[in-house]
Amino acid sequence: MDQRSLIEGVILTSLMKIESPEGCVLRYLRDNDVGFNQFKESYFSTVNKDVIKPWKRHMKMSLNIAVPVGEIKFVLYDNRPTSSTYGSFNQIILSPENYLRLTVPADVWMAFKGQGNYNLLINTADLVHDPDEVERKNLSYFKYDF
Amino acid sequence: MDQRSLIEGVILTSLMKIESPEGCVLRYLRDNDVGFNQFKESYFSTVNKDVIKPWKRHMKMSLNIAVPVGEIKFVLYDNRPTSSTYGSFNQIILSPENYLRLTVPADVWMAFKGQGNYNLLINTADLVHDPDEVERKNLSYFKYDF
Repeated sequence: MDQRSLIEGVILTSLMKIESPEGCVLRYLRDNDVGFNQFKESYFSTVNKDVIKPWKRHMKMSLNIAVPVGEIKFVLYDNRPTSSTYGSFNQIILSPENYLRLTVPADVWMAFKGQGNYNLLINTADLVHDPDEVERKNLSYFKYDF
Repeated sequence: MDQRSLIEGVILTSLMKIESPEGCVLRYLRDNDVGFNQFKESYFSTVNKDVIKPWKRHMKMSLNIAVPVGEIKFVLYDNRPTSSTYGSFNQIILSPENYLRLTVPADVWMAFKGQGNYNLLINTADLVHDPDEVERKNLSYFKYDF
């Protein structure tokens, strides 16, 4: 996906991998990176193979996601009437092989699917987890062929 | 290892895991957590099975480490003459099953060994990577039976 087709406010950033015979280093996030706002919380989330976690929208939190293990397909949906990309979907597959950081602004809907045998994402957010700023919908609410 | 036997300044913190049939959430770090200083950089590092990454000491950086995949044995050595635990070793095995956050202050030596098939650590540091603040020694420099 080229940068122009991204939903307004979504950022994809290439991350450096430094490989060695003993293991590797995978860069993830620095405080002066594009998309970094402030540090409030980092957590991991796993999604089992072929499981789809349905639509979720954060009203306040922006996300900084990377996938250091496995493969996860993220689908974003822009339902913000005032956005230049209103009505658009983005599909982004992250893995250690396609090692990018996905920055998702508040108010963009996201669902994701585990595609590897073991799939781990990290998210660093500018807000500590608060169930009151999250809206959820069933997978069928926005039609997308996963 | 109980808290009293830890090297001065080292902190082990239990982290919450929230399991579900679809996957799990693994808490890692919040900005008001004990041991959190400031956010400068987060990165992943992998260490292959049976590989030992030898002794390293950060002169300025403190570390906040967790292991969300695999199993890594960390050995710390306190070579600070003014420390109450001068001359002590600590051995700490981290994994998703023993899911703790290991906070290592500046000036404590650390080496670690991959013990699972795929071993991934995250570190969140209060300093961006700077080779000038790192000192390295061969594994034989401080004798420890890994």
